[in-house]
Formats: sequence, structure tokens, C-alpha cells
Amino acid sequence: MSRITALDTADVRFPTSLQLDGSDAMNPDPDYSAAYVRVVTDAGDSGHGFVFTIGRGNDVQVAAIEALAGHLVGKDVEPLLADMGGTWRDLVHDSQLRWLGPEKGVMHMAIGAVVNALWDLRAKREGRPLWQVLAAMTPEQLVGLVDFRYLTDALTPEEALQILRGAEPGRAEREERLLRDGYPAYTTTPGWLGYDDEKLARLCREAVEEGFDQIKLKVGGELADDVRRLRIAREVVGPDIRIAVDANQRWDVADAIAWIKELASFDLAWVEEPTSPDDVLGHAAIARGIAPIPVATGEHMANRVLAKQFLAADALQVLQIDATRVAGVNENVAMLLLAAKFGVRVCPHAGGVGLCEAVQHLAMFDYVAVSGTLEGRMIEFVDHLHEHFVTPVRVAGGRYRTPTEPGAGTEMHAASLAAHTVTRDA
Amino acid sequence: MSRITALDTADVRFPTSLQLDGSDAMNPDPDYSAAYVRVVTDAGDSGHGFVFTIGRGNDVQVAAIEALAGHLVGKDVEPLLADMGGTWRDLVHDSQLRWLGPEKGVMHMAIGAVVNALWDLRAKREGRPLWQVLAAMTPEQLVGLVDFRYLTDALTPEEALQILRGAEPGRAEREERLLRDGYPAYTTTPGWLGYDDEKLARLCREAVEEGFDQIKLKVGGELADDVRRLRIAREVVGPDIRIAVDANQRWDVADAIAWIKELASFDLAWVEEPTSPDDVLGHAAIARGIAPIPVATGEHMANRVLAKQFLAADALQVLQIDATRVAGVNENVAMLLLAAKFGVRVCPHAGGVGLCEAVQHLAMFDYVAVSGTLEGRMIEFVDHLHEHFVTPVRVAGGRYRTPTEPGAGTEMHAASLAAHTVTRDA
Repeated sequence: MSRITALDTADVRFPTSLQLDGSDAMNPDPDYSAAYVRVVTDAGDSGHGFVFTIGRGNDVQVAAIEALAGHLVGKDVEPLLADMGGTWRDLVHDSQLRWLGPEKGVMHMAIGAVVNALWDLRAKREGRPLWQVLAAMTPEQLVGLVDFRYLTDALTPEEALQILRGAEPGRAEREERLLRDGYPAYTTTPGWLGYDDEKLARLCREAVEEGFDQIKLKVGGELADDVRRLRIAREVVGPDIRIAVDANQRWDVADAIAWIKELASFDLAWVEEPTSPDDVLGHAAIARGIAPIPVATGEHMANRVLAKQFLAADALQVLQIDATRVAGVNENVAMLLLAAKFGVRVCPHAGGVGLCEAVQHLAMFDYVAVSGTLEGRMIEFVDHLHEHFVTPVRVAGGRYRTPTEPGAGTEMHAASLAAHTVTRDA
Repeated sequence: MSRITALDTADVRFPTSLQLDGSDAMNPDPDYSAAYVRVVTDAGDSGHGFVFTIGRGNDVQVAAIEALAGHLVGKDVEPLLADMGGTWRDLVHDSQLRWLGPEKGVMHMAIGAVVNALWDLRAKREGRPLWQVLAAMTPEQLVGLVDFRYLTDALTPEEALQILRGAEPGRAEREERLLRDGYPAYTTTPGWLGYDDEKLARLCREAVEEGFDQIKLKVGGELADDVRRLRIAREVVGPDIRIAVDANQRWDVADAIAWIKELASFDLAWVEEPTSPDDVLGHAAIARGIAPIPVATGEHMANRVLAKQFLAADALQVLQIDATRVAGVNENVAMLLLAAKFGVRVCPHAGGVGLCEAVQHLAMFDYVAVSGTLEGRMIEFVDHLHEHFVTPVRVAGGRYRTPTEPGAGTEMHAASLAAHTVTRDA
């Protein structure tokens, strides 16, 4: 038996705004940051997790993680890790903390960081990557991870069990294929709004050379700029490479439909975050208005209740789960099951700090044990800040190479933490 | 010209769980708290605001308020107060802080506290209560307070202007009536789940004697208890007093419909928070399933985008705005305009710490300058913690007496702050 002795936190910030990496229509100057947590045990091991933020307020996010110490410090580790469904409920249903959301924003993401750190610890103790830990669980165990509160009008535990049992045949074969071939990726590296046309063209060319068959461009600043940039990108990549666009919540409903119609001739793979991430009915109206171009969203989807509604209302055609927006692995398992129920493809959001490292495990688990398919699926890839992680993603030939190291991919190098941690009063 | 010199914060907590005041199906043991802020100027005056929480995490909420200091400290006060629409946008659209919601949870509520504190300062400088400050503004000035981003598919600035112009005739007459007769109230004091039957009956009797014509009972623990408690309440108050019930988000969609059908014979005035406050489509299904019993919700409604959808989908029949859940007065003005557009009555949520003191100003402004009616409208009243406020509400004969003191009602006594502030490490 071992005990949790501390939640060690760090306010980690990178000055990415200096290069305009990550610049889009709503976020002109992000400083990619992580509210980082290490769940430390008296056995000498630890689990690592974080919330990705874009700068100011990262200290608030750290404070929220620290507010969870009372739930974990002093507790025996093994029962917590053995019943991750119960551990999740204990954190999310703390009635006093729940008031601060409920189940959304800073407090909910803080729970996600801690839940993910516990999964990292469990995977390390099992000596396997997280995707394999999850993919080795029985359908009953997986259903036990999910809180079905507020979901049962769309997905019952019995239906979830059927989905998971349906994917049991072929698990071993898909795991083997994954280890051999990796998982498809697409890249957002060329498309940041702050880049000039020459850099855009060069990065588009490099993306194709590197083997990507989908790229993504940020849009929503000025229509004329979007048209010019899309023309450059389409000329460089040719007709066979898919181009998605991402408006980062820039538009109202009518604007979105009108704007996208002006861009439709460039053969768009999807339109991402056209409007407020809370606007289920608005997205549904946009999806109807721009069909057959798919609507993609999810990186700012606060919780599984939003996912349920977006899917039930046909308000999205591509679900973009995020590793650190919701309450961690468990809630993302719920969202994967909902997507499977509604037959919608999942193309995870990544980039930021460590989001690629973390979310690949969820997509790979989904392939092995939930949806059982790679059809139309790919994980976003942005090539920065990977060097700060102990097990950085490996992307080659347009594919994520399947990780085999133990853990959830969420551990940063001690030297990186030391170099980029700011003090609370900075 | 004066300048803001500090945002002074305080982590204020009251041990209400000892008496089970405030106990409901989701919140068995709240410790009513306030993340309090004082916006201090070098002119020697100050504006006061707060976020109501129920205990743990109040320190996180305080940290979020402190993260806004950079937006305000050192700034000239007069331009901020003269352009509250611009001030609101500056805070809400800080792209880095926005990432932490967006527009929801701890960070959004923090903005609400600061916005409300600025309104308190403005009202004090104008020497009038907040409701009168708002009700004296022109339709154009009021429209300028509202951010219509994400709203225009349901409400355009032009439509808002029409609503406000339509309510201009009769403003003076309604103001006079308000000052004379006050605003209708209903009481939740009898109905907390933690009270025994004898206390319930006694408090129901007292409510009727005090002149209330609506009471509210918490439900959603055990069905048999709800039936027994409703029977007691109905027997005590008779057939002419309305009884609403509040499930505090306890149910899934099917449970809500089934449970309410078991209680329908008690003639329910409304069913409050039957399920997740994020579940627009779920509420719509419940509303259809229990009609003609109205669905009421709003105290946990994260922002105006949710309000828009709830109204457009006919997912609620009573909108319960809350003074400290959204980003302050400005966003509540948006919600009042949306309710007016959809012809839905507003019955504000109150209770907690200072929510009655704060929200009465919004309801009274609505009556004078937006909806122009009291039809079916009333403000929740819970009789505790008012003694800590400099201008406590006065409720008599089942009505809020209209406040006439300058300010937004949000200032606590210095002695109360001193006695109930806990230190960050407590």
C-alpha cells in the first residue's frame, strides 16, 4: 500500500506570442502555458497531468488544482487507481466545488488534470502506455469509468456495454495494426493567422512533403485574407490534400453561413468552431446552412452534457475531443461512447502544450476498443513544445507513431519545468 | 479624474452547514460564502461586488478576481464607468483569460464580481440605487451595454432597441408604483431538505402569515419524502398559495418527467432545475413531458448564449437570472432583453449571500424599462445573512420594498468582513 503525499503544482509558461505561433481570429497572442500537477506518492513514484491554457489566468488554474488536495493527499493510492470511476465521482460531485461550474471552466479542468495524473500513475505502475491500459479493460470495467448522470436519454450503460462488446472481436488485430502503422495525423502548423503568405506557402509545401494528407488554416479575420490564403494553400497542396478551416468561434450564425459560402469553392474538409462552443442550436443551424461541408467542434466543449446535445441535434459532424478541457480520461471515454452511439467520427484537438502527447492515447484506445475504425479519423498535430515532454510524440509520414512507453504521455522534463515555471507573484 | 488603486479581495465564509440552511438534493451541506471584491479609488470611494459560492473553492474564486487587477488598477475611473459596455468587453474578451471558460465558470463569475462592483461605484457616485441608474438610461445607452456577439440569430441590437423604446412610455408611472408598492416576492425559507416535518409546517404557516403567496420546496431526495412534505405544505398553506418545487439538477430527463408526474396532484407552480443546467434539449423534452407545469431554471445558466437557446427551444417557461453567475449587470441586461423578446417571465434566483440585495435591482429595472410588467413575476426571498449588508433588503407583506439608497446593494459591513474572512491557508 502507498499513499499520496502531495499535489505538487507548477505555473508553466512559454512565450509563444513572440513568434505568433498559435495566433488565430480570437487569440492573437497566446503564451502557451500549462497548469501542471504532479501527484506524488510515498512509494517514490508520481503521476503527471496538466491543463493547457494560453497565458494569463494560468495561476488561477493552478489554484484550482491545489483546491483538490484535500480529496487526495493522505489517501491510499491503490484503491483510488483501482476504482477510477469512483475516484472521478468523488471529485466531480464534491457539492461545494461543483457550485463553481457546475462541471465546467476552471474547476472542472482542474479535476481533469488530477484525474489524468492518476491515470498516468496507473499506467506507469502497469508498465504500459495509457491507450493499452484502457484497451485491456473489459466492457464492464470501461462502463464503470463513466458517469451516466444526464446522459441516459441518449446513452444508457446497457447501450454503452453493447457498443464495447461489439468492438471486442478484433481488438488484438487492431492493436497490432496500430503498433505497426500508427494513427493518421493532420497538421495545423502552416495555418496560423499571424504568418505571412510566404511562410504559409512554404509550410504548406513542407506539410505535403512530410506526408500529411490534411492541413488546417485559421480563418475569420478578414474575408479577403481568407480567400487569398486559401487560394495560396490550395495551389501549393493541389486538389488531393484536404484543407480544413478553423474560425475559433469568431462568427454569429448568419455570418458563419455567409462567410463559409464564400470559401466553399476551395473544397473545405470541415469548418471548425464557427461560433460559440455553447451554442448547440446555433451549430445545428450552421451545419444545415453549409451542408455538405461538415462542422467540427469540441476543443472548448465544457462537458459530456454538451457533447450529448451536439450529437443528438446533428450540430457537428466531427467531434474534436480535448485531453484537458473536460474532467480527464473518464469524461473523454464518455464522449467517445456517445460519438460511437451516434456514428460520428472523432478527430481530437491537439497542439498547445502536451495536448498531442495526451490525446493520442484516447484516439488509439477508441480505435482498438470503441469505434474500431480509422475511417475519416485523424489527430491534429502541431509541431511545437514537444521537446519538453519525457515521451514526446513521434509523427512521421503523416502519422502518429504509436507510443509504447509506460504512462499517459503527460510528464514534462524536470529541467523544462524548472526553466519555465513562473512564481505566483510574477 | 480619479484612479483605481486596488482590487481588495476577501474570502468570506459563513458556517451555514451547521443549521442545514440551504440544504437540497445536490447540496447537502453548503457553507454560504462570498468571494468579495472592493474596487478602491484614490478619490476615497469604492465599489463592492462578490461571487456567491457554497464553501470549498471560494479561495479559487478570489484568485480569479485578483487575476483581473491588471485590467483595472491604475486606470482612470470615469471613462470606465461612462462606457460600461466597453469595460465589459475589455474584461470578457481578454483572449488569454477567455480560454479558461470561455465565458463560463470561475473566470466568468470573477468578471461578474468586478463588473458589479463598478456598477455599485457608479450608482453611488450618481447618488441613486442601481435600478434607478439603469432605468434612467436611454434605449440607445442600454443597448450599448450589451454584447450581441452570438445573440443576433435571436436578438439584434435593432430589436433590442425596439423593445426598450416600446417600454419608454410609462417608465415614470411604473417607477412611482414601484417606490410605493415594492416588487412581489416568494419564499424558499420553509423548504430546505434538511428541515424536519414540524419545522416545515411551522415555516409554511409563517410564510402565509407574512403575506407570501408563493413558497418553494426542495425535492429530489426520496419520492416518498417529497410526497409527504408536499402534502404537509399544501395542507398548511391551503389551495390559494402557489407551491413551486426545486430539484437542484437531480434528475435525468426520463426521471424528471416520471417524478414530477407523481407530484403533479399538488398543483405545482413550477419545477425548478430538473436536470443539468447545460442541457437545453433535455429541459425542452422535460417541458414537453410535464406541460402545462412550467419549467424554471437559470441560477446556474453560464451565460447569455445558454439563455438564448433555452428561450428559443421553449426549454424554460420561467427564467431565473442570478446576480453573480454571469458576467454581471451587463450580461443580465442581455438576458432580460432576450426574455422580453421571447415573452418569457423572469423570476430571479436569490438567497445565498447577498443575492437578494443584488438581484432586486435587475428585476426592478426590468419592470420599469424592459418588460414593463409584474405579471407572474416575483423575486426569490430567503431570510438569512441580510444583516451583513450595509443596505439589507426589506421584505414585508410578501414584497420587496424598493431600495432607495445609492449603490447596487452589494456592500457588506466592514465588521462582517472582518469577522468572517478566512485566510488563504485556512
